Amino acid sequence: MQQLRNLTYGIVGLGLMGGSIAKSIRENILSSGDVAGKIYASTRNKAALEAAKNEHVLDDYYTLDRVDEMLSLCDFVFVCFYPHMTVDFLTEHKNSFKKGSVVTDINGVKAEIFDRIKEIESDNFDFIPGHPMAGGEKEGYASSNAAFFKNHNYILMPLESNKASNVELFKLLITEMGFTQIVETDGRVHDHKIAFTSQLCHVIASALVNSAEDAKVTQFGGGSFEDLTRIAMINAPLWTELFLANKKELIAHIEKFEKSLECLKNLIQNDKAEETKEYLENVRVKRIEMSRNDVKVEK
Amino acid sequence: MQQLRNLTYGIVGLGLMGGSIAKSIRENILSSGDVAGKIYASTRNKAALEAAKNEHVLDDYYTLDRVDEMLSLCDFVFVCFYPHMTVDFLTEHKNSFKKGSVVTDINGVKAEIFDRIKEIESDNFDFIPGHPMAGGEKEGYASSNAAFFKNHNYILMPLESNKASNVELFKLLITEMGFTQIVETDGRVHDHKIAFTSQLCHVIASALVNSAEDAKVTQFGGGSFEDLTRIAMINAPLWTELFLANKKELIAHIEKFEKSLECLKNLIQNDKAEETKEYLENVRVKRIEMSRNDVKVEK
Repeated sequence: MQQLRNLTYGIVGLGLMGGSIAKSIRENILSSGDVAGKIYASTRNKAALEAAKNEHVLDDYYTLDRVDEMLSLCDFVFVCFYPHMTVDFLTEHKNSFKKGSVVTDINGVKAEIFDRIKEIESDNFDFIPGHPMAGGEKEGYASSNAAFFKNHNYILMPLESNKASNVELFKLLITEMGFTQIVETDGRVHDHKIAFTSQLCHVIASALVNSAEDAKVTQFGGGSFEDLTRIAMINAPLWTELFLANKKELIAHIEKFEKSLECLKNLIQNDKAEETKEYLENVRVKRIEMSRNDVKVEK
Repeated sequence: MQQLRNLTYGIVGLGLMGGSIAKSIRENILSSGDVAGKIYASTRNKAALEAAKNEHVLDDYYTLDRVDEMLSLCDFVFVCFYPHMTVDFLTEHKNSFKKGSVVTDINGVKAEIFDRIKEIESDNFDFIPGHPMAGGEKEGYASSNAAFFKNHNYILMPLESNKASNVELFKLLITEMGFTQIVETDGRVHDHKIAFTSQLCHVIASALVNSAEDAKVTQFGGGSFEDLTRIAMINAPLWTELFLANKKELIAHIEKFEKSLECLKNLIQNDKAEETKEYLENVRVKRIEMSRNDVKVEK
């Protein structure tokens, strides 16, 4: 833990996620005790940088034209850009990272990163792909919150080339930030699983809101519709990117879901009371198992 | 309000909903001040009755074979049975209700009630169909909770024959219980709207859990899947009944949702970035409008 208190952290992109990471490091690691560490950030939106500095979340900031200056100072860098910008940023600024630093991204789809991993890797720093499984439906630094990460999952996809000590440091950092479940896997498994737990859910919620006959129907709501569709207050450009970047996996999950829905619809349509009850009993058992499911860190 | 404190309330069926209604009346109406009112209940499960009496939720209970005795004492009766038992109960015990009392049900589908309304109606008491839009995924008295109703919707479907003063009394009661939005409509509109906000959501959540490749996929969850499928810890017999009882409306909503999903799937499949973004932008606007939507009481 003392090691974490002496590091200089750099956040590239200070929106909902970058802001929450900065706040979480400030709150959980650099707030008290023997602290030599710093938090810096660089992003396009200067108002966010100023707000974060005024709130003492940042020790200092660097406008985007000075990002290389910042990178050269940082021991641990989170690149929190939109997915399509991440790989380009990493390759363009490859020579600016501090020697021996750890660098990670937060992309929701990893295909491009793993396709272009040779362009990103460097002897100079350790790039460890990661994905914090948390967020909120409102975007921007103003909506960021250290509490988003409490008891959430973090997916790590270490490369063959990564130093074991850096992976351990990363795990220590995110544990201190509040993440309680760390799963280690590879980019292919990540994209397959995330297409289900995250992208498919956003597709379903959006299609459900789209199918509502009017916005007044929530007068008749009891909480189910509201819970199902909170994520439909969606960041349209970001999710468009994620859906298209993971199209193959996502379409396969949508089609599996469509079949599952069709099956239940047919049971209801044909008054199959016993089979409907059995379908729902199985779902209940599976869903309860899911909520009891303990994550084991696997490699 | 003083009027509510002097009434004798009867709960028939003391499960999740009946228990929550009893607790809510105790907590919000009969807990303090000048109180002459009583809460009685009758249900099959004697353990629930005893627990509720020990917890001072009930003043007394009547086993089901003595329910007529209870009904003859009550000014306001909530029948909280499974839907298929409600109309039979009301018609069988029609002559036991206290003269001038108000009687309501909590059925999630109203078709049978309105089809058989002539059998239920009586000069002796006022039957006012209602539906409290609240609940939880765990069933039974042990899971009941007065807090379920805070800031929730209550749908009332007054009949031509109802006394205006009884409808007002009902509204006063549920407002004191914590419901903040009361919508007045008829049985047909109710079944159409509820098929969307409630039953369709349960169908989707169940189909989504069913389509999961295994129960361990939540290791990769970030909250979306969990929120979408909490209601899939479903009471299978109850929801089978509700789905089949409202089959026509429900199937129509499922098919509208399927078309909406198919449309979004096709946009993604065909890399239509601009149209996907537009679809999601519209969804976002509509969902935000839904959450701002003020309920206006309409008749």
